[in-house]
Amino acid sequence: MSEECSCVVNGRNYNELSTRDLQVLFSETEDKYNELKNLGLKLDLSRGKPGPDILAISEGYMDKVTTYKATDGTDIRNYGVLDGLPELKQLFSDLLDIPTDKMIVGGNASLSYMHFINVILALYGAVIDSDDGTVTTFSAPWSTSETKILFPVPGYDRHATICEDLGFTLIPVEMLGDGPDMDQVEALVANDASIKGIWCVPLYTNPEGKVYSEATAKRLAEMKTAAPDFRIFWDNAYAVHHIYEVHSAPDILRLCEAAGNKNRPYYFASTSKVTYPGAGVALFASSDDNIAQYKKHMNALTIGHDKFPQLRTVEYFHDADGIRSHMWRIAEVLRPKFDIVTCYLDRELGGTGVLNYTKPLGGYFVSVNVPDGCAKRVVALAKEAGVVLTGAGATWPYKKDPKDRNIRIAPSFPTLSDLKTTMDIFCVCVKLAALEQLLIIE
Amino acid sequence: MSEECSCVVNGRNYNELSTRDLQVLFSETEDKYNELKNLGLKLDLSRGKPGPDILAISEGYMDKVTTYKATDGTDIRNYGVLDGLPELKQLFSDLLDIPTDKMIVGGNASLSYMHFINVILALYGAVIDSDDGTVTTFSAPWSTSETKILFPVPGYDRHATICEDLGFTLIPVEMLGDGPDMDQVEALVANDASIKGIWCVPLYTNPEGKVYSEATAKRLAEMKTAAPDFRIFWDNAYAVHHIYEVHSAPDILRLCEAAGNKNRPYYFASTSKVTYPGAGVALFASSDDNIAQYKKHMNALTIGHDKFPQLRTVEYFHDADGIRSHMWRIAEVLRPKFDIVTCYLDRELGGTGVLNYTKPLGGYFVSVNVPDGCAKRVVALAKEAGVVLTGAGATWPYKKDPKDRNIRIAPSFPTLSDLKTTMDIFCVCVKLAALEQLLIIE
Repeated sequence: MSEECSCVVNGRNYNELSTRDLQVLFSETEDKYNELKNLGLKLDLSRGKPGPDILAISEGYMDKVTTYKATDGTDIRNYGVLDGLPELKQLFSDLLDIPTDKMIVGGNASLSYMHFINVILALYGAVIDSDDGTVTTFSAPWSTSETKILFPVPGYDRHATICEDLGFTLIPVEMLGDGPDMDQVEALVANDASIKGIWCVPLYTNPEGKVYSEATAKRLAEMKTAAPDFRIFWDNAYAVHHIYEVHSAPDILRLCEAAGNKNRPYYFASTSKVTYPGAGVALFASSDDNIAQYKKHMNALTIGHDKFPQLRTVEYFHDADGIRSHMWRIAEVLRPKFDIVTCYLDRELGGTGVLNYTKPLGGYFVSVNVPDGCAKRVVALAKEAGVVLTGAGATWPYKKDPKDRNIRIAPSFPTLSDLKTTMDIFCVCVKLAALEQLLIIE
Repeated sequence: MSEECSCVVNGRNYNELSTRDLQVLFSETEDKYNELKNLGLKLDLSRGKPGPDILAISEGYMDKVTTYKATDGTDIRNYGVLDGLPELKQLFSDLLDIPTDKMIVGGNASLSYMHFINVILALYGAVIDSDDGTVTTFSAPWSTSETKILFPVPGYDRHATICEDLGFTLIPVEMLGDGPDMDQVEALVANDASIKGIWCVPLYTNPEGKVYSEATAKRLAEMKTAAPDFRIFWDNAYAVHHIYEVHSAPDILRLCEAAGNKNRPYYFASTSKVTYPGAGVALFASSDDNIAQYKKHMNALTIGHDKFPQLRTVEYFHDADGIRSHMWRIAEVLRPKFDIVTCYLDRELGGTGVLNYTKPLGGYFVSVNVPDGCAKRVVALAKEAGVVLTGAGATWPYKKDPKDRNIRIAPSFPTLSDLKTTMDIFCVCVKLAALEQLLIIE
């Protein structure tokens, strides 16, 4: 918790106030809003971008590599190496406890792996588990019939975009404290063979910062699905992105294998928020059959990823502990930012009944719910006052939050001082929108 | 021409020799072959990889960039910039005479652009020219009915792989001296609406090193096609890869626009063989509508390419002339290699009637035709003697050369000394395979 913040929750519950009190409060809040608006600020809380203070921690990452030779003798300047340099695989294996032969590393974005996997599923179908493991068979291409994908809400908009772009139908399912509502998930997948997958950010969910429990992951791995080619898109985007304490994602690959569903999970990770977004490296891990299917089609699109970021990542970090200690330095920069957000939310809106949220355990975001029907208005008010927020609805499929209440706050980019101003404005906007609604001012 | 090579063509035409003479020649050739085989060499002429001598010319390319700020203020360490840094667009615009607003730059491989364009066509169809330009309409997804693509032979195997992987049917068309046989092409596309595209390497064709004439390009741009969504895949892979003299590719974008077919061409290029394969940058250029369609779907797969190679390319070359002079330094290393290949072919096989080829005007390869039915045998004999050649048939769709005669030679990687040994072996293998056939030895 930020030392400057006394965190006295001094709000009165708006729902218990008289109309007269609400009117007084509205007038005060409107004055405050106009005062802030007149500052003519230009601030951005919209995307999970590292700030210059975080980027500075990776200074030296782009220094010239000391050699062009990989450990296996590969000249990294030349063509080749479809699935990545062995030393980078080893680093990821040590860090994430995934066998090196179950992964492909390279490229600058795990999003591209997620996208291409979905393109493959759309065009060619999925590997079906065979009884004896000798023959590989494939389901029908997912684009040839209706395909539905479960999307725990609130969730990550770019996961939804991949499916929307391919014409897959997204079905929202509720997020509980330790992962999606598994009763709901199990009931859905048991009876509808067109439900073929689920998106998961198991550690520090985007945007709520929750952590999937072992029990949730086990149920995902073991559940009976009507679709024989059901898939878990396991985006471990924040695998090492701790803020307050260290948590870890359940081992979905081993859980699925133990449950006899080894082809069910696709595992993704990257160093986009470890070193530099765009200049890091990504990882895709899965069963032997899934990796083989991926590599077959990958061969049509590339002769090999850029191997310089791969070697650079290994030279910069040396080993898994190098990444872990680096991430703690990033956490030290992020922590006061998260503290400011939660402190402002608690101090300004605690007890008012017009905002609820749970403090994230890690990751990159804070997710809040404002009164139903108020999220778009809050985002619009903030925009008028010079603060860009993630669009209301962005955390739902088709960008449509049916209750119009969820807003994702991304505190990583601004300076501490800007963040305070921004949260000041944000809290005033929430109050104003809530009061407008209570007073039915349109 | 290599100074060491006298290039005396001393072969006797095998087809005019008596059986006895053929038997003597066979015995001599077999002895020579066994002698070479016993050297236990391990050499590779298979892929168009730059050798260490060529890579050395780009020393300094991977030095640390001098700034993290692009000219438009973008922090290249962070997320964003879907279509590339403006300074790199300007560099490519100056080099290739393409307007900056008609291109996307970034990524490490033009092959990935080609692949994703084809995925888009398979899944979503192609932009149809509208009469007034106000409404954009799309043809049916190419995956929903039979799609045929013309493939000038011999051609580049990875172009074929993209289409084969997507289930498009490849139709070989004959390459003449200045591009594909346009009489054949025009007749095919005029009558069959399922023929939706053609692959072209307009400058220094892969593998023959021919150059498309202006007249050929004009006919491609203007020809009437039964398919309203016909496309030209214009892979200008060797745009600046001159060896003996400077040629240039016809301006397909302007020719198509002038012909009222602005959406017909997709233009590709890269610096894979300018700086380092894998660590260079690629370009995709097309009409406004095609670029817009591409960016819409591209948004599902990435938040932006790695911007370091983009800025690095600009910092290393400064301007288009920087690239041009760099490419002449590469040409000076490549020229003696090409000279060795053509000198050996002329000296050892000229006049024998068992090999024909045309000297490439530039690019990366030499293409030869051996007697029908002999290509696979030559490749097998070479392999036994320690020389890996590109697989026979690789230059044809489905890797099936119906006459089994074409072989692609890639002289860029070996040292001059290794190349001489390799060509020695190659020529002996061609002689031996031809003599086996003439003597019906199996």
